[in-house]
Amino acid sequence: MQQSTGAIMLAGSAGDCPDIEYATGFRAMDPVLYLRRRRRAVLVVPEMEAGRAERTARGVSVATPRGLGLVGTTRRGLAEWAVALARRERVRAIRVPDSFPHGVARRLQRAGVRVHLLRGAAFPERAVKTPEELRRMAETQQAAVIAMRAAIALIEAASVDADGFLRCRGRRLTSEDVRRAIAKVLFDHTCLCREVIVAGGRQAADPHERGHGPLREREAIVIDIFPQHEGHGYWGDLTRTVVKGAASRALRAMYDAVRSAQSAALAQVRGGVQCRTVHLSAAREFERRGLRTTRRPGGGMGFIHGTGHGVGLAVHEAPSLGLNRQRLRRGNVVTVEPGLYYPDVGGVRIEDTVVVTRGGWRYLAPCEQRFELA
Amino acid sequence: MQQSTGAIMLAGSAGDCPDIEYATGFRAMDPVLYLRRRRRAVLVVPEMEAGRAERTARGVSVATPRGLGLVGTTRRGLAEWAVALARRERVRAIRVPDSFPHGVARRLQRAGVRVHLLRGAAFPERAVKTPEELRRMAETQQAAVIAMRAAIALIEAASVDADGFLRCRGRRLTSEDVRRAIAKVLFDHTCLCREVIVAGGRQAADPHERGHGPLREREAIVIDIFPQHEGHGYWGDLTRTVVKGAASRALRAMYDAVRSAQSAALAQVRGGVQCRTVHLSAAREFERRGLRTTRRPGGGMGFIHGTGHGVGLAVHEAPSLGLNRQRLRRGNVVTVEPGLYYPDVGGVRIEDTVVVTRGGWRYLAPCEQRFELA
Repeated sequence: MQQSTGAIMLAGSAGDCPDIEYATGFRAMDPVLYLRRRRRAVLVVPEMEAGRAERTARGVSVATPRGLGLVGTTRRGLAEWAVALARRERVRAIRVPDSFPHGVARRLQRAGVRVHLLRGAAFPERAVKTPEELRRMAETQQAAVIAMRAAIALIEAASVDADGFLRCRGRRLTSEDVRRAIAKVLFDHTCLCREVIVAGGRQAADPHERGHGPLREREAIVIDIFPQHEGHGYWGDLTRTVVKGAASRALRAMYDAVRSAQSAALAQVRGGVQCRTVHLSAAREFERRGLRTTRRPGGGMGFIHGTGHGVGLAVHEAPSLGLNRQRLRRGNVVTVEPGLYYPDVGGVRIEDTVVVTRGGWRYLAPCEQRFELA
Repeated sequence: MQQSTGAIMLAGSAGDCPDIEYATGFRAMDPVLYLRRRRRAVLVVPEMEAGRAERTARGVSVATPRGLGLVGTTRRGLAEWAVALARRERVRAIRVPDSFPHGVARRLQRAGVRVHLLRGAAFPERAVKTPEELRRMAETQQAAVIAMRAAIALIEAASVDADGFLRCRGRRLTSEDVRRAIAKVLFDHTCLCREVIVAGGRQAADPHERGHGPLREREAIVIDIFPQHEGHGYWGDLTRTVVKGAASRALRAMYDAVRSAQSAALAQVRGGVQCRTVHLSAAREFERRGLRTTRRPGGGMGFIHGTGHGVGLAVHEAPSLGLNRQRLRRGNVVTVEPGLYYPDVGGVRIEDTVVVTRGGWRYLAPCEQRFELA
């Protein structure tokens, strides 16, 4: 990487700049600043965080605003920290990611520092997981698998009332109930999940609808679980679609197509393959079955998203399994999650997260595929 | 506000740019773009999100990359969206917050759009809560109160073994156990909490240490709960410090001082008062009692943080109860949370979240203050 020769500056907290945690092992609750220049790396943290940073950050020297000579109200902002750090380290030019705060960049420029945008990722190697990272991710994914089983068991155990609503313990079973059951399992595995999706019927036709209200028989219920481990911060991602009772012919055709599309996509996954090859093999499987995709401003239907995305310290990271020509590398961790969305029938998505190997792939943690529940 | 006359552009997801949710009511899971020009506002969302945005966003017209005329791989990034939107809306100059992505700003500049930094907040009125916002925040804070009671009840019910460790159900009670009990209560109230702090002994002397391992009698245990409601997104914030058994004389002196400092700070809170007045009244209470604060690079001890911060759609937002001269306004919601940290004794922090009124303040949701637990 020619980029690794210049100074790189990153700014943010763990949530919005996972590269800092990747580079240092330090999980920042409040915004911090990171500078790497040749072999030297510095992490600037609020005074309050200095002790924790000294104990947990690796391969960096920890600095604080006070240590940089900032006092009183001039200590307050990342921009001041950045200028003081650039002066102390005698850095005249830096590279920053696209997401770098514009306010900090402008202040650096006014102080005479040239600010260039990185071409590509600050740490491209972040997309290639080490064995230790894979172990952590498998731990998170396993929690998702156990939570998925609990969710499906709840739907399977439900009865159906005369109006077609699922019932459990004397009342209607809702998306919220299933989400709560999932969340409790995740907690017991030291994982959190901000936005579990449990969406039935028409709701499931919108891939980002979280789902709410009573669930019904014979409708597709999309369950998408993407937990983050509270301890080490790595994410997992898993989706299943189930139906209580028998699916309609249209719904079953959608399910079969999605399962075939996932198999077709997985059959292409291995080190060296272009991302578009994987995505197009899923898309072609839908075309072959006459399941059309229509895109239009304000929505669309059919296969309206990419086939998958990288997972790691962020739930969405490189590589992206879309139309790009980037090549998969051994050690990438990607979701493979084709889906179909037709408002008049519902939505179906099946997602597994896999590790790319030289000759193919393996599951991060396997999970059985179930559809119609008795 | 003279700023409200120019075009304002915001970019980000709900987690890193709460202003977009504030302005539109739309919770963005992936990054979106917002532009306001005079009375017209536009929200650009991924195609997949268009349906949900149409249903939930208020006071904006929803656009998608496709609707802006972007096709194929040019649809991918926020920067392309921003340039296309600026062209369509014939915007030649925008104001952006400090946190706006530098990569997007640079692309706009190359396309001939002048990019200025906002002085202050994009929506200063966000710091003044409406009755509906206060109702939502009280709901979240009430969940924190109930979770706090569950945590304290667990510690109170524990026995103490011969080595001074707390025991519960035949094994040592850990920070993790208490955190799990808190999390379960929060879940039952549709709230999530990423980083509950349950830190005992020396760990509690580091205000950002989350806490881990077995808890002991006679040591201060700091419990800091800051949940976010999953439905409406508003946060709460609550901290108590307890000790199982009798506190040492030094620890009790710290606790009494923190309680007095909180009372002194609260006594200053009302509309029109400068933030520094509130902060200094807490700091002076510590000084008066001879409890000194020493700050140094790499740490410090005593009262090493501000007295509080605003809460709303972000857990930390304006106003900040530090040394600034900003004036509190009726409808601000702020934490009041003085604390003392001495590594040889431990840490003590007491935090309540209050609504600023014309003549004073009221609790968002009251919670009893307990210290020594039998």
